[in-house]
Amino acid sequence: MVWQMRLVSSMRASPLLRRPILQGVSRPIALSTSRIMAQTTVQYTARQTLSTTVPRTRNLDLDNINPHVREAKYAVRGELAVKAEELRVRLAQGDKSLPFDSVIFANIGNPQQLDQKPITFFRQVLSLVENPSLLENPEALKKSFGYEQDVIDRAHTLLKDVQSVGAYSHSQGAPIVRDSIAKFIEERDGFPANPQDLYCSAGASSGVNTLLNVICNGPDAGVLVPIPQYPLYTATLSLLNAHCVPYLLEEEQAWGTNVKAIRESVMQAKSAGINVRAIVVINPGNPTGASLSPEDVKNVLELAAEENLVVIADEVYQTNVFAGEFTSFKKRLRQLQQEEPKKYNDVELASLHSVSKGMVGECGQRGGYFELVGFDPLVAAQIYKFVSIMLCPPVVGQCLLELMVNPPKKGDPSYELYQKEYNGIRDGLHKRALALYDAFRQMEGVECQEPQGAMYLFPTITLPTKAIEAAAEEGRAADEFYCMRLLEATGVCVVPGSGFGQKENTLHFRTTFLAPGTDWVERIVEFHNKFMAKYK
Amino acid sequence: MVWQMRLVSSMRASPLLRRPILQGVSRPIALSTSRIMAQTTVQYTARQTLSTTVPRTRNLDLDNINPHVREAKYAVRGELAVKAEELRVRLAQGDKSLPFDSVIFANIGNPQQLDQKPITFFRQVLSLVENPSLLENPEALKKSFGYEQDVIDRAHTLLKDVQSVGAYSHSQGAPIVRDSIAKFIEERDGFPANPQDLYCSAGASSGVNTLLNVICNGPDAGVLVPIPQYPLYTATLSLLNAHCVPYLLEEEQAWGTNVKAIRESVMQAKSAGINVRAIVVINPGNPTGASLSPEDVKNVLELAAEENLVVIADEVYQTNVFAGEFTSFKKRLRQLQQEEPKKYNDVELASLHSVSKGMVGECGQRGGYFELVGFDPLVAAQIYKFVSIMLCPPVVGQCLLELMVNPPKKGDPSYELYQKEYNGIRDGLHKRALALYDAFRQMEGVECQEPQGAMYLFPTITLPTKAIEAAAEEGRAADEFYCMRLLEATGVCVVPGSGFGQKENTLHFRTTFLAPGTDWVERIVEFHNKFMAKYK
Repeated sequence: MVWQMRLVSSMRASPLLRRPILQGVSRPIALSTSRIMAQTTVQYTARQTLSTTVPRTRNLDLDNINPHVREAKYAVRGELAVKAEELRVRLAQGDKSLPFDSVIFANIGNPQQLDQKPITFFRQVLSLVENPSLLENPEALKKSFGYEQDVIDRAHTLLKDVQSVGAYSHSQGAPIVRDSIAKFIEERDGFPANPQDLYCSAGASSGVNTLLNVICNGPDAGVLVPIPQYPLYTATLSLLNAHCVPYLLEEEQAWGTNVKAIRESVMQAKSAGINVRAIVVINPGNPTGASLSPEDVKNVLELAAEENLVVIADEVYQTNVFAGEFTSFKKRLRQLQQEEPKKYNDVELASLHSVSKGMVGECGQRGGYFELVGFDPLVAAQIYKFVSIMLCPPVVGQCLLELMVNPPKKGDPSYELYQKEYNGIRDGLHKRALALYDAFRQMEGVECQEPQGAMYLFPTITLPTKAIEAAAEEGRAADEFYCMRLLEATGVCVVPGSGFGQKENTLHFRTTFLAPGTDWVERIVEFHNKFMAKYK
Repeated sequence: MVWQMRLVSSMRASPLLRRPILQGVSRPIALSTSRIMAQTTVQYTARQTLSTTVPRTRNLDLDNINPHVREAKYAVRGELAVKAEELRVRLAQGDKSLPFDSVIFANIGNPQQLDQKPITFFRQVLSLVENPSLLENPEALKKSFGYEQDVIDRAHTLLKDVQSVGAYSHSQGAPIVRDSIAKFIEERDGFPANPQDLYCSAGASSGVNTLLNVICNGPDAGVLVPIPQYPLYTATLSLLNAHCVPYLLEEEQAWGTNVKAIRESVMQAKSAGINVRAIVVINPGNPTGASLSPEDVKNVLELAAEENLVVIADEVYQTNVFAGEFTSFKKRLRQLQQEEPKKYNDVELASLHSVSKGMVGECGQRGGYFELVGFDPLVAAQIYKFVSIMLCPPVVGQCLLELMVNPPKKGDPSYELYQKEYNGIRDGLHKRALALYDAFRQMEGVECQEPQGAMYLFPTITLPTKAIEAAAEEGRAADEFYCMRLLEATGVCVVPGSGFGQKENTLHFRTTFLAPGTDWVERIVEFHNKFMAKYK
């Protein structure tokens, strides 16, 4: 009974502020009937459970698993994504009953699922580190497969350090990988970087998980998260039983960061007894695509210095910038430390990057890293211990990270092809973003900010009252209802704004602009017109 | 202040039973001086901290990070491993002052770090999935590199399903991978397996993390863990603020599982108010190397049925069995369900496997999976949601998993070489295990069980009183002291028994038998004799 009381008390302590703005209905993911196995009744053994009315046949049920797992929400791979996958399988199995002939996964930034070709140099080197015996015949590699000498050289260099991609590396990542990342950061920012402050990770997601695990120190810990946000943040905070302290991005200001609004959130949270420990900034933004100016970045750092917050800068889209230039938090922090050392010297910053985004788009390889700036070495040692429990990030993903931050240079034999492929992907993304933006501008009740970066557009949709009522009847948020109908009618899968959080009484959806062609954009336009007409 | 009180109260609630038998001193990992940066003092902002006597200059310090991270221990990559890596770097930089010329990492099951060659078939296929453009010239692959047709075919088959290894897969793993795993389990056990019950993971560690996250539902949840154990379990339970309920393995019975002792642990835990939810069994054992008989497995399942426990079967060493045959928990459970359906039908089992161990030894590729048996579909849906937050396991690691469970068959062109390499690795491991065992038998004060499986020996050491006193003076557990001296004198890195837990008043160390040659075994013998003589 002690346990029951504890659990209930911890649930009661869960404050209203946790996810006040995150709308959306949570329900179990649909499962095919083959999973629903016959249940037989066994004798009931007296145990502590929350519901004792019906004898249970298993140990674990929805009521007695970790409540924080149950509470976590992750819409990017939620009901809509599961449904889209089911539709894809039906099409693949020859089902002709659907009103479309392909499913478009615009719900997730997964470029190579949508036919983006990997960059040749990267994959050539990776084939060699996976099978070093290929290196025994360099002439054949060149003659029969067009491998250049710099590809072969790089494979040798990587293998000399990692020995085998099948061996565990250092838990922070192989030395050669961290050395190259440090050089990359130095060149990007004009300030030194130390390989010992770098932690490779299995994609940036795993890095975020590490940082939040260390920072959240009890049920009253809170982390400032932009709304809308990438739901990894709210989901992880739910798992850690910590507070998401939301701050609203300003849609009217191209989804910019309003420090005044953040300060208000901090004040509110503090007065509710929350220990606000860190601020998450996603730049360029996900799902908004917004790109912050140097002034915006400074404002956040100033706030962090004054409020003593750790800054978590999610910079995985740093090369996906169409408008202006990317300003890293590290660079801006170092500049401010030169100007006002007393104020800025002890700001703690963790900056994340990944091979999944940018023009690399190698999501499935699970490569990423974070850099710690200004952290207490004793805390860094705890972070090392934490990551060491999972031993090491995938070593092939680490090698790819090295290639991403240290690509062929001018004059290298692979440079020209690399450059051509890189620019081709970049221009393609920009072109598709603009095409989608143009389509949205022509749609009734849809408003969209001009594309600035990342891989997403996040338009506002204004739906007729009848549509909102129809959604309520189905027990769904209105934007979820819209997205479900869109998927069923067109095969296009997008994520409702409620999955990322949005200002009250607004509706949005997030779509990637990765899918090739314009047919799917036309499908959206046509659906939207019919939908609006139906519910007018 | 609310926060402080909460934290203190949660620390006070931490019961004595948490890790009663786990000895060992925890201290911060040594960091090179370059990390210790100059600290400047800034104005102190009034905040809630545990120690308010000294103004802090940063937000995060050892006292205010997540206390559960701080409490977690993971000796496999702890102080000794860090020291060993430092010694390796010194040798690589030409340091001649050390009394040895190589560091032997016998602390971790990392075969390819110790020159175990990867299996050719695996790596050939992986090179092709990393660079599919190689498939455009199959003749050159055959002629210049000896790739067989089945290698080429398999790469095509995998790519047809995963599309690109750079694309996110289904969060449970690509369909083709789970289909092959299901077939493998069916052939192994003679009972059907369902791909929908399989969850690929980034190594088995990540699977354990998922399962414990879902099962541990509050501060009174407890999980039975064998002592000695692989410290992933205690570390993860620490992170989740759940109870490790230890049960002692019987060294005298070849490290067997004594169900009577487990029952006593359950009783004790229950009377301390702990909600015992699951039992971890590592078979073959880590660090003990013990291999359980069908009768042992039955006994555990019977206990689980009676006490309503989820069984977590860590079966990553299932092919590393020298004595007798491996019996899977799944097979035994299905047999028992046929015999006594009423008793066994609702037992929940999660069984883990990995590409890191066995004769595959591909640790750095981070491939693994777990199978759920008898879980409530609604709980399975929560597990799906949990893993989806990290998107997907590395796709190359998934492909390797497919190759491991579906290797070349008799008659396939790659079969003969595969078989030769596989058997060579297996025989080599057995031979080295026996050589090490023979050496231990000749050492004074060392007792060791005959090698049965896994990659480890876990001898008992009886140290002279003077050695134990010298250790205490250094503030170290006696086995840690012994291992530290061993490393400093010989370059051989092993892990003290206190890192895994051991019966009170016993001392052990764990060593892998992966390192080639016998020179390092002789180093241990020579060190041991000198050590014993010195402290006699």
